[in-house]
Amino acid sequence: MIDRYKDLDINKIWSDKNKLFLWLRTEMAVMHARLHFKDEISWEDYERIKRSLEENPIDIEWWKAKDKEIHHDLNAFIQERIRFMPKELRKYFHQGMTSYDTEEPAFVKMIKDSIKIVERHYFELEKIIKEMAMKYRYTIMNGRTHGQEAEMQSFGKRCLTWLQDLRISFRNLRKSKENLRFSKLSGAIGNYGGVTPAIETKALKFLGFKPQYGATQIMPRELYAPIAQGLSQIVATINKIALTIRLGARSGRPIYQEPFAKKQTGSSAMPHKKNTISTEQMEGMYRMAKAYAMAIMENIQTWEERAIEQSCVERVCWPDLFHVTIRVLKVMKRVLGGLVVYPNNMLQEIYESRGCYASSHAKEILKQLGFDFNEAYRIVQLAAFNVFESAREERFPKSFDDADKLITMDLNVFYKKLVSIKEIISEGNSKVSLQLSATKEEVQNWNNKLREVFQHSENLELWSKIFLPSYLLRNEDTLYRRILRIT
Amino acid sequence: MIDRYKDLDINKIWSDKNKLFLWLRTEMAVMHARLHFKDEISWEDYERIKRSLEENPIDIEWWKAKDKEIHHDLNAFIQERIRFMPKELRKYFHQGMTSYDTEEPAFVKMIKDSIKIVERHYFELEKIIKEMAMKYRYTIMNGRTHGQEAEMQSFGKRCLTWLQDLRISFRNLRKSKENLRFSKLSGAIGNYGGVTPAIETKALKFLGFKPQYGATQIMPRELYAPIAQGLSQIVATINKIALTIRLGARSGRPIYQEPFAKKQTGSSAMPHKKNTISTEQMEGMYRMAKAYAMAIMENIQTWEERAIEQSCVERVCWPDLFHVTIRVLKVMKRVLGGLVVYPNNMLQEIYESRGCYASSHAKEILKQLGFDFNEAYRIVQLAAFNVFESAREERFPKSFDDADKLITMDLNVFYKKLVSIKEIISEGNSKVSLQLSATKEEVQNWNNKLREVFQHSENLELWSKIFLPSYLLRNEDTLYRRILRIT
Amino acid sequence: MIDRYKDLDINKIWSDKNKLFLWLRTEMAVMHARLHFKDEISWEDYERIKRSLEENPIDIEWWKAKDKEIHHDLNAFIQERIRFMPKELRKYFHQGMTSYDTEEPAFVKMIKDSIKIVERHYFELEKIIKEMAMKYRYTIMNGRTHGQEAEMQSFGKRCLTWLQDLRISFRNLRKSKENLRFSKLSGAIGNYGGVTPAIETKALKFLGFKPQYGATQIMPRELYAPIAQGLSQIVATINKIALTIRLGARSGRPIYQEPFAKKQTGSSAMPHKKNTISTEQMEGMYRMAKAYAMAIMENIQTWEERAIEQSCVERVCWPDLFHVTIRVLKVMKRVLGGLVVYPNNMLQEIYESRGCYASSHAKEILKQLGFDFNEAYRIVQLAAFNVFESAREERFPKSFDDADKLITMDLNVFYKKLVSIKEIISEGNSKVSLQLSATKEEVQNWNNKLREVFQHSENLELWSKIFLPSYLLRNEDTLYRRILRIT
Amino acid sequence: MIDRYKDLDINKIWSDKNKLFLWLRTEMAVMHARLHFKDEISWEDYERIKRSLEENPIDIEWWKAKDKEIHHDLNAFIQERIRFMPKELRKYFHQGMTSYDTEEPAFVKMIKDSIKIVERHYFELEKIIKEMAMKYRYTIMNGRTHGQEAEMQSFGKRCLTWLQDLRISFRNLRKSKENLRFSKLSGAIGNYGGVTPAIETKALKFLGFKPQYGATQIMPRELYAPIAQGLSQIVATINKIALTIRLGARSGRPIYQEPFAKKQTGSSAMPHKKNTISTEQMEGMYRMAKAYAMAIMENIQTWEERAIEQSCVERVCWPDLFHVTIRVLKVMKRVLGGLVVYPNNMLQEIYESRGCYASSHAKEILKQLGFDFNEAYRIVQLAAFNVFESAREERFPKSFDDADKLITMDLNVFYKKLVSIKEIISEGNSKVSLQLSATKEEVQNWNNKLREVFQHSENLELWSKIFLPSYLLRNEDTLYRRILRIT
Repeated sequence: MIDRYKDLDINKIWSDKNKLFLWLRTEMAVMHARLHFKDEISWEDYERIKRSLEENPIDIEWWKAKDKEIHHDLNAFIQERIRFMPKELRKYFHQGMTSYDTEEPAFVKMIKDSIKIVERHYFELEKIIKEMAMKYRYTIMNGRTHGQEAEMQSFGKRCLTWLQDLRISFRNLRKSKENLRFSKLSGAIGNYGGVTPAIETKALKFLGFKPQYGATQIMPRELYAPIAQGLSQIVATINKIALTIRLGARSGRPIYQEPFAKKQTGSSAMPHKKNTISTEQMEGMYRMAKAYAMAIMENIQTWEERAIEQSCVERVCWPDLFHVTIRVLKVMKRVLGGLVVYPNNMLQEIYESRGCYASSHAKEILKQLGFDFNEAYRIVQLAAFNVFESAREERFPKSFDDADKLITMDLNVFYKKLVSIKEIISEGNSKVSLQLSATKEEVQNWNNKLREVFQHSENLELWSKIFLPSYLLRNEDTLYRRILRIT
Repeated sequence: MIDRYKDLDINKIWSDKNKLFLWLRTEMAVMHARLHFKDEISWEDYERIKRSLEENPIDIEWWKAKDKEIHHDLNAFIQERIRFMPKELRKYFHQGMTSYDTEEPAFVKMIKDSIKIVERHYFELEKIIKEMAMKYRYTIMNGRTHGQEAEMQSFGKRCLTWLQDLRISFRNLRKSKENLRFSKLSGAIGNYGGVTPAIETKALKFLGFKPQYGATQIMPRELYAPIAQGLSQIVATINKIALTIRLGARSGRPIYQEPFAKKQTGSSAMPHKKNTISTEQMEGMYRMAKAYAMAIMENIQTWEERAIEQSCVERVCWPDLFHVTIRVLKVMKRVLGGLVVYPNNMLQEIYESRGCYASSHAKEILKQLGFDFNEAYRIVQLAAFNVFESAREERFPKSFDDADKLITMDLNVFYKKLVSIKEIISEGNSKVSLQLSATKEEVQNWNNKLREVFQHSENLELWSKIFLPSYLLRNEDTLYRRILRIT
Repeated sequence: MIDRYKDLDINKIWSDKNKLFLWLRTEMAVMHARLHFKDEISWEDYERIKRSLEENPIDIEWWKAKDKEIHHDLNAFIQERIRFMPKELRKYFHQGMTSYDTEEPAFVKMIKDSIKIVERHYFELEKIIKEMAMKYRYTIMNGRTHGQEAEMQSFGKRCLTWLQDLRISFRNLRKSKENLRFSKLSGAIGNYGGVTPAIETKALKFLGFKPQYGATQIMPRELYAPIAQGLSQIVATINKIALTIRLGARSGRPIYQEPFAKKQTGSSAMPHKKNTISTEQMEGMYRMAKAYAMAIMENIQTWEERAIEQSCVERVCWPDLFHVTIRVLKVMKRVLGGLVVYPNNMLQEIYESRGCYASSHAKEILKQLGFDFNEAYRIVQLAAFNVFESAREERFPKSFDDADKLITMDLNVFYKKLVSIKEIISEGNSKVSLQLSATKEEVQNWNNKLREVFQHSENLELWSKIFLPSYLLRNEDTLYRRILRIT
Repeated sequence: MIDRYKDLDINKIWSDKNKLFLWLRTEMAVMHARLHFKDEISWEDYERIKRSLEENPIDIEWWKAKDKEIHHDLNAFIQERIRFMPKELRKYFHQGMTSYDTEEPAFVKMIKDSIKIVERHYFELEKIIKEMAMKYRYTIMNGRTHGQEAEMQSFGKRCLTWLQDLRISFRNLRKSKENLRFSKLSGAIGNYGGVTPAIETKALKFLGFKPQYGATQIMPRELYAPIAQGLSQIVATINKIALTIRLGARSGRPIYQEPFAKKQTGSSAMPHKKNTISTEQMEGMYRMAKAYAMAIMENIQTWEERAIEQSCVERVCWPDLFHVTIRVLKVMKRVLGGLVVYPNNMLQEIYESRGCYASSHAKEILKQLGFDFNEAYRIVQLAAFNVFESAREERFPKSFDDADKLITMDLNVFYKKLVSIKEIISEGNSKVSLQLSATKEEVQNWNNKLREVFQHSENLELWSKIFLPSYLLRNEDTLYRRILRIT
């Protein structure tokens, strides 16, 4: 991964230094287990080896040079280590083992430790979203489906959805983590040619693992594919949130915006810009996360008791996938933690939706008041089309002159009192719409019927109520209680 | 593909009936070529075979039953056909050939014919977009980068971009089509065990192909992967256009909308909805097109002189990819052909961008008028932040009561005369912004300097000009001339 | 999916008929739940509705025609159903619901039922593999890593690995199945505009679900992506097994082969062929499964409270993914159930590996007998290179004449007694190899030392033992015990 | 990319240093073009700017620090550069431009230069394969389809296929390269707000490009996706070759092997191993190349006149894709350049295929000699099954004792004279096979008929001929002539 997107914690975990340290850890665990079963090696010898290695830390450069010569990094490591051991004790090192016996426990440890970093950032992000949900509990906005204004909701409720979606993806990762409890020391083809099952069990226990019975020379990559997919799914969910932020941040009337640093430059050409660059980057990161996960998933395929197709992919794509995941978590913490929210604009959006935020309730009430299913639907639909049909003619300029004229006229003409379906319907004022199939007679009939119905003040009261937040959001309490476990 | 998304033309091309017809065509072409080289078969025999096959059309059901029995569709086809041939002539049928000699020319023919269907729809789509570009030549709108209002442009110019992007993707497909000029009849491992190079050349010529020298039992799938990617890239470009339509169709103030059928239902719950379901479907289709192209691309991999991994993928994913591509072209023709455009809303967006649509020109003019690079940038940035900084305090309701109150107050309060950076700057009225680092003194200095500069009427004139379409769009002519080859 | 690869069970589950049946089931469950809470509807009305719908089964064709007209399949369904209901009761149908309230529980039910089919085939496959493991408990073969002969193992042990790898992938699917316990009825944006939380809970209980709190108009697709990936991972594992079968079935000397039907045709050109077409198809199916899962995974992305990008993908890719998964399971049951195993060829392979199947033990023994780490390694490596270095000169024919001569000479020359590293080493007969860096002196020294060591009969005995299955496979017992829980 | 797989040439091209150098190149080209049109700037000023920048090379560290501060790398670059320019001239730098005007030409230049590196390695690889084709022109081997021995061919002919497949993929890349002839300087939304079309044309000409009319703020990513796919397809083809090498290198009897360095270590456990690690790595690289290309392809999607989703993907995946492509080319040059070929083993494989390498010719000859289509096929199939049916009973050991016994018996029993279908058929010696449906009577009849036919010496002569390389490979000449343009 390029420096720009690197996470330092992840970098450390996947460094050569840490890898060799973990390889050594495996070797010592096996030796220790042999000791336990009195398998050849004695306490004195074990201690002598341990001491000699501790006194001579691994020389990464020596190891790299040797690797270049013999094209085998694990053998290079062994040669680096046994340099410092008494000749007669060298046979105990890596005894009866194959490279991947040493490497597999180290590899899984790196994944496990990286997930810990993911978890840390994840929980911080979760906390931020919980706080947002509480803060915006009564901040009303239009929900949107298909990009269109739908019913009214609180912004807090949208935050609860984000929280829940993240929790699903995170729970999914956690479930896959169980796959990391296993490892193997069962030799070149997995039938314990060099290390006995008992020694394997003991040594793995030292390392924090249980044996994966049936492993070949390597652990089955079926165990790790779900981890990679789990990570990329977390990135997917965060990108979904990012997308919804980008959509709300569209000018002219943003309902929220990414935090913008004081010295930040929006665009080298256009000084007025507050670009949603952080949330847009999430989409790019998502493209990469998907790609890395796909490559890792393909590592399941191999020949017989193993071939080494998976190695280069794992060297590159695992750390890169973690870098991307952490990056996305960090950026989203910053974006949500500093999100600039505009309740006024949210309110203006509601106002401009001209009562349609309650259209489904309007339809239900009409059914209750005696209109049939189809009728109720079409009455509300017609009113909705009426309130949005512009009085002003749409004109397409034919020349620059035309266009110049448009721009210099008094554009405040745009702002006039908005009509709502609330009035159109309760006052029986619908008109035929070219976009809908209702005839003049039908509309007339509906209007008459509506006027009659709404003469009754209890009906009108009922009608008014459904346009209020206290009515429309009345059931969001349940979400708060269930999701945040509060009242 | 499910019926809902099937194209009938594509369906016909990839039908069993057409496939067997094309297999027969290969067989007859080879026989014909043998005749030409006087290779064993005589005119009389050839004619007898031809006649007997013409008199007995292929029985698809018989063939299917036989395929089930012997697990080999091509051999089942041969057996179906030779039933009707005089016993002594049967040896001439499929003589010296392997299954894929028969199948490969048929397969490529199906791809070629499918591409013709793509091309037909593509050109119709291109025509629609060209007409749009002309129609909306002077319909001004805000360009958008990062979802934010950028500079002013015509909607016609946006259409030109769509046209050009589509042309790139289509040109890309066309280039790959050259790969379809080749086929093979060179036998079981591609070294002409049964058919000589001369007969191959002649027979392929009858079928409209040249020999692919070096083919194995099959044609190298390297030839077809770019076709699949080319198709999926066309879908990608159309989805990009669809995405931009969805973004412009966001309520409350759509600048354009998908056509909406009179009897169409928006949402079963919310009658007011005019959902962008067609353009959203493009995204789903794009997900599938990518997937199919990926699977087809993987067909390059095989063992030695071939294994049959590719067969099932090709049976399924090629027609499905074509169905999806055609679907997307058809839907986009309907959407763009019937696009409802709202120039008033476009104009209102421009107005509400408060002059920022000319911010880069403003910055350049200020540099011209003596402000240095950094200063010019920061003055315009500050003015832009000023005009958007709301006078009204942002308040977050603390209860449903609060929220109910908000919704019932006079919301026409939102509409007031908008201030533009045009005036703010030329009148020297900038104010310190909490979001930017400019100090009070700096702002004061800038304002003074600006007032002085704009005392000069020629400067003010220059300044006013840059906010006009005739100035801002003056270079779009070039695009029209270059792209549409008109003046 | 094309007929060729369709599974009838899956087809039924994803049919229109079943879908509408399940939609109706949701509607009735909600009505039933309303009844329970005495929410408007009475027992009598409920019963009347139920009866009228039962007496008039859904007319699929009517529904299809209506869908075409109004472009909305759920609304078309509602209109089809209410046709048969007393006018005054129609308001109770789909009351307060949005389309996806009806559809989501149906959709998850289809996935759940499809997984049941997967499970049935999976368990049958598992059973077959267990039986194979028992049957081939002592059938010795060379394990292979990197395609090269590695240590000896039993074929039964390889079957155990297949079993375990499948179990991992299957367990992975099972874990994801927990995600299918949830559904939603919370309305157009998920804040219970039409159905109360209590009714949701009750109705979902009738349908076998718990509420997903925080759902928007739709369930978060985060829940389903892991299912799709789980299915595609099962296909991946089966393809891995298929790959290992293909590798073992390579002629000239197959160690096992796919079953071959008596009337099956291998190749239309080459009558001697027994092609591994079933296992090769697995690779194609895997390419498709990956693609479908990827498309489904992308469905996580959507806008705000939902857009409908996911719909077409789900209509197509879910059933197709299940068809492919079932296909692969069925074919693998047939292939493994009828696998033709050649223990003689396995034995011959062992013989021809010239003792190298015990090379790691040889190395360990030498270390035990006093050779140092590096020396032991190089001695065995040299012996291994020696036994494979051909006595006969490699010649490249320069003409067809040369080539014809080769083919007509007595080719039985190839068969001579094979030399094993067992003898080479114990008799101290190693020779310098051009491929290795050991000098003449080194080799001489090694030989001398080896001769000395193996003068001692106890050393020789030890040495002989490591070449025997009873020694080499001694630890496979553990695998049998742990994996099959037998002794 | 990690160091292990980095290519130094690619690394240099994609370095910060080179990027900033290329950005500066764009800036100077635009200034130069302005000069040409006498657009504000004078010769003296241009020269002064140029000199001041040349005298003060870019300070990468300064730039990095500034980027961190303002979150905008291009603006940081501008600020770095104008530091050194006379105050009054600064306005000419980046005048009227947007960041991506500067960046796009630089970006494409990096891709173009990287492709040059690809081409260099590609042509070297092509040369190696051509030489192989010539060298192995008469080296006979079994072709393989479905992993099964098919007809005979020369190894040179297989090399020709590799050559042709690579050429297709390379030609595909070359065609896409045409997309790199274009770039843009048309400003923030692509309608020449700051730079006129004439200046764009001139400046791009200096840089080696033509204008892409219709570009937005950025170039359409449709232009680059095919390049990425073209690169990944080259990797795919190389991996296909690698796969075929791995298959041929399977022990016990490799027909070719990767070169093996003298000090190379095969396996840390098994000293006899000569693992195909280089060709296996190709598969891993292919997994990555596919993934990178997919991520890059997705960059086509963006919003309106651009958002910045593509940026991080391009920073990471383009250089990584090039590193992987170059790696694969380099390794394949080494592998093929040093491939160890075993013609003896190839010959032995032919021998052990027992004449089946000519089975399709045998079938054709029999048809010629009067057998009908079906009969000819079944006779050859039966003979083929006969020669492979082992005389020795297949036994499955029931215990370790059994297994130990097997291994210690005289295993030279395996080697006996092989029977060929050549004799079986010409001598009329076929036997009923349990695997085929031919009855005893049928077989008897065939044998009788065959004996009669082959009494005639001209028939027998014809028969013998088809088993010879000079006959079977007679048409390979055409391939050599057509592909290598030699005779």
